[in-house]
Amino acid sequence: MPYFDAASTLPPHPVAREALLAAWDEGWADPARLYREGRRARMLLDAARETAAELVGCRPDELSFTTSGTRALHTGIAGALAGRRRTGRHLVVSAVEHSAVLHAAAAHERAGGTVTEVAPDRGGRIGPGAWAAALRPDTALACLQSANHETGTEQPVAEAAEAGRAAGVPLLVDAAQSLPWGPPAGGWSLLAASAHKWGGPGGVGLLAVRKGVRFAAPEPSDEREEGRAPGFPALPLVVAAAASLRAVRAEAAAEGQRLRRLTGLIRDRVPELVPDCEVVGDPVRRLPHIVTFSCLYADGEALLHALDREGFAVNSGSSCTSATLAPSHVLKAMGVLSEGNVRVSLPPGTGEEEVRRFLAVLPGAVRGVRDQLTAGGAVTADGDDGLVLDTLGKRCPVPVTELGRVIGRVPVGGTVTVLSDDEVAGLDIPAWCHLRGHEYLGERPAPRGTAYRVRRTA
Amino acid sequence: MPYFDAASTLPPHPVAREALLAAWDEGWADPARLYREGRRARMLLDAARETAAELVGCRPDELSFTTSGTRALHTGIAGALAGRRRTGRHLVVSAVEHSAVLHAAAAHERAGGTVTEVAPDRGGRIGPGAWAAALRPDTALACLQSANHETGTEQPVAEAAEAGRAAGVPLLVDAAQSLPWGPPAGGWSLLAASAHKWGGPGGVGLLAVRKGVRFAAPEPSDEREEGRAPGFPALPLVVAAAASLRAVRAEAAAEGQRLRRLTGLIRDRVPELVPDCEVVGDPVRRLPHIVTFSCLYADGEALLHALDREGFAVNSGSSCTSATLAPSHVLKAMGVLSEGNVRVSLPPGTGEEEVRRFLAVLPGAVRGVRDQLTAGGAVTADGDDGLVLDTLGKRCPVPVTELGRVIGRVPVGGTVTVLSDDEVAGLDIPAWCHLRGHEYLGERPAPRGTAYRVRRTA
Repeated sequence: MPYFDAASTLPPHPVAREALLAAWDEGWADPARLYREGRRARMLLDAARETAAELVGCRPDELSFTTSGTRALHTGIAGALAGRRRTGRHLVVSAVEHSAVLHAAAAHERAGGTVTEVAPDRGGRIGPGAWAAALRPDTALACLQSANHETGTEQPVAEAAEAGRAAGVPLLVDAAQSLPWGPPAGGWSLLAASAHKWGGPGGVGLLAVRKGVRFAAPEPSDEREEGRAPGFPALPLVVAAAASLRAVRAEAAAEGQRLRRLTGLIRDRVPELVPDCEVVGDPVRRLPHIVTFSCLYADGEALLHALDREGFAVNSGSSCTSATLAPSHVLKAMGVLSEGNVRVSLPPGTGEEEVRRFLAVLPGAVRGVRDQLTAGGAVTADGDDGLVLDTLGKRCPVPVTELGRVIGRVPVGGTVTVLSDDEVAGLDIPAWCHLRGHEYLGERPAPRGTAYRVRRTA
Repeated sequence: MPYFDAASTLPPHPVAREALLAAWDEGWADPARLYREGRRARMLLDAARETAAELVGCRPDELSFTTSGTRALHTGIAGALAGRRRTGRHLVVSAVEHSAVLHAAAAHERAGGTVTEVAPDRGGRIGPGAWAAALRPDTALACLQSANHETGTEQPVAEAAEAGRAAGVPLLVDAAQSLPWGPPAGGWSLLAASAHKWGGPGGVGLLAVRKGVRFAAPEPSDEREEGRAPGFPALPLVVAAAASLRAVRAEAAAEGQRLRRLTGLIRDRVPELVPDCEVVGDPVRRLPHIVTFSCLYADGEALLHALDREGFAVNSGSSCTSATLAPSHVLKAMGVLSEGNVRVSLPPGTGEEEVRRFLAVLPGAVRGVRDQLTAGGAVTADGDDGLVLDTLGKRCPVPVTELGRVIGRVPVGGTVTVLSDDEVAGLDIPAWCHLRGHEYLGERPAPRGTAYRVRRTA
């Protein structure tokens, strides 16, 4: 049964299991102890650190093992901000960073710091000029992902590092999605990654802090991992993580080429197979294994369930999934449609026939979900200024679904006003206009909810 | 080869390995996802939580899996302090808590809070009266271990919880050492524990927070484990941890009785076999598997190495070990000798013949280490007020070793003054007096270092 959610987590690489078992039997003792069992654990830990450092592109004494990528990000950001507190308390992040970065930024703001979010283009890519312009004399740290976890869009990390060097601002690179494919371009000051994204186990992150970067280990103090990751280590997991990173890197060049062709196939075929569908993310500067698209007039969660019934595990950035009540902040920052969103991320080894089977079942799955939405229950009326579509009390994707249904009744050049109290409409209606080629005239508060105005141009 | 450092960490229970492998293959996906693989992971996580909660004695929705016992303590303390910040910023801890608690207390103090450390008696036990007296109207939290990790001494947790209830102060119990033997007495508000102390893997801690306890999840926010443990879970480890806790509990009653007899044997025999040796910790209210003693005139690190060469892995709270430059804060708080300290902690399954072999090699190991210390190089002189022993520039255990050597030259009722610039002497010389039955007259600053005065009484 095809699992197409590699960007969330990967089934562990077979090498990870072997390494885990060897370290389980040999590496259970405390590596800080002086007796034989402790020394043996220490050797395993040191060897894992050397392997991981080589593949990250840093010195072993610059690399700490944390308990997750989230922890690596939280600790890296807090430590760098604390270490450079005398410079200032300004933090720069891209608006499409992983939520762990944005949560750390929000915590920094609540603690009195300031944060600038740099917006991406419609492909999800940060402009190097906008990035450099955000750096200020009081900027303590800037955080940019090597590539986006929802769209696969690669970010200009080398340019951002260069801008940071010129401005004297260290760059933290969240390399979680790209590290399996290769080390990020040099010039970064801090790097975070997560083993379960490359076929290592959950429970292991990497935090690299270059020598010379000001860094204050967070409180409370702890003697492990240079004070950057408190608590007794999960040594078998760390060993498994290092072994699997080496293994996936050995396969990365060939596998990357193969998966890029398969995601390219999805990018090309989905708009042909599914009407009213938008593929999002940069079409060229992208990771090999991720492709994301949104389907108008479809409920994301219903689509996930329909695909799950067909045997395909995918993810969605739609607000209509029960796990998240808000739409993906990434899609929101890009200004693209969030409804009926599907992220396909292929694990290494995915076969072309699985992808073709996915393409074969997708149109029917989308159609089935769209068919469930026929009775929207919205009310239309003629207003002073064209048609008024009342979708108050209706949740995503109803406002856009109803808009799509009534647009044919609007004369070309005429307007329709959508009333909605679902805040996602503020993202999806403009995105719908962009996708369908209509003109979005703007929004204003209405007696209840918000009024969104659209001019039919085609 | 006998491993006698169970209180540091245990070799994993065989059940843990089986559970790990099952969950490795079945539970690698993100339990927050809606597709089949995610739901399967979720079921494993829920089942592990139910098992662990039952064995802890709480509701499943009160229990979070953290990445270590240290993290559980750090998060538990920070969350309870933040949740009760309006009550006050006073924290009560025992002076013999695990360093993770004391580090959290130090961080709280640096952040502007206040901390009261309650001192133990010479057996390492906290008096319930002293504990109750430390609680104030502005006390936000009190932290008491169920039993000590260095001496095995059990603490009056039920009385402390009762005092907390009377004063309206929640009690956090660090149950790391005792949880394998049984749940702590009821009445606690928060509980922390660590899986690698019961034969589970490193990388899993438990944090229980009773419903109704004010608790503010620490920043940055994260949606996992009620915001109490950010990051992707190490699900196979969590499953292994729960399975092994169940397994060790099934064996706890019989194994506890057996190990208590073996540690009792060590407690009884060591003073007979090794001259100038003190067994520390409460002789009755103690965990089954831990026994600790200190040997006068011996270097703790040298003793560890000597025992390691004989095949025995033990730990030491001496300051003379390379891993820690200060003596154990536990021994210090108890006012007992720290030099030549050995902690023996027996894993389940330890055989009597192993313990007897340990008792057979111990006297020779101590003798060998003591023999290396013959040339102390201290200088004695007659002062105005009795003998003066100059050990300036000499490290532990030289000051006490030399004191033991010269005491015979002091007439009964006469005094000897030891000059030392090793701060451990301030702990070890009074402890030596207590042990040898001499009178400790006190210390005062000297032109270099400190002068410690001792009256020969026997």
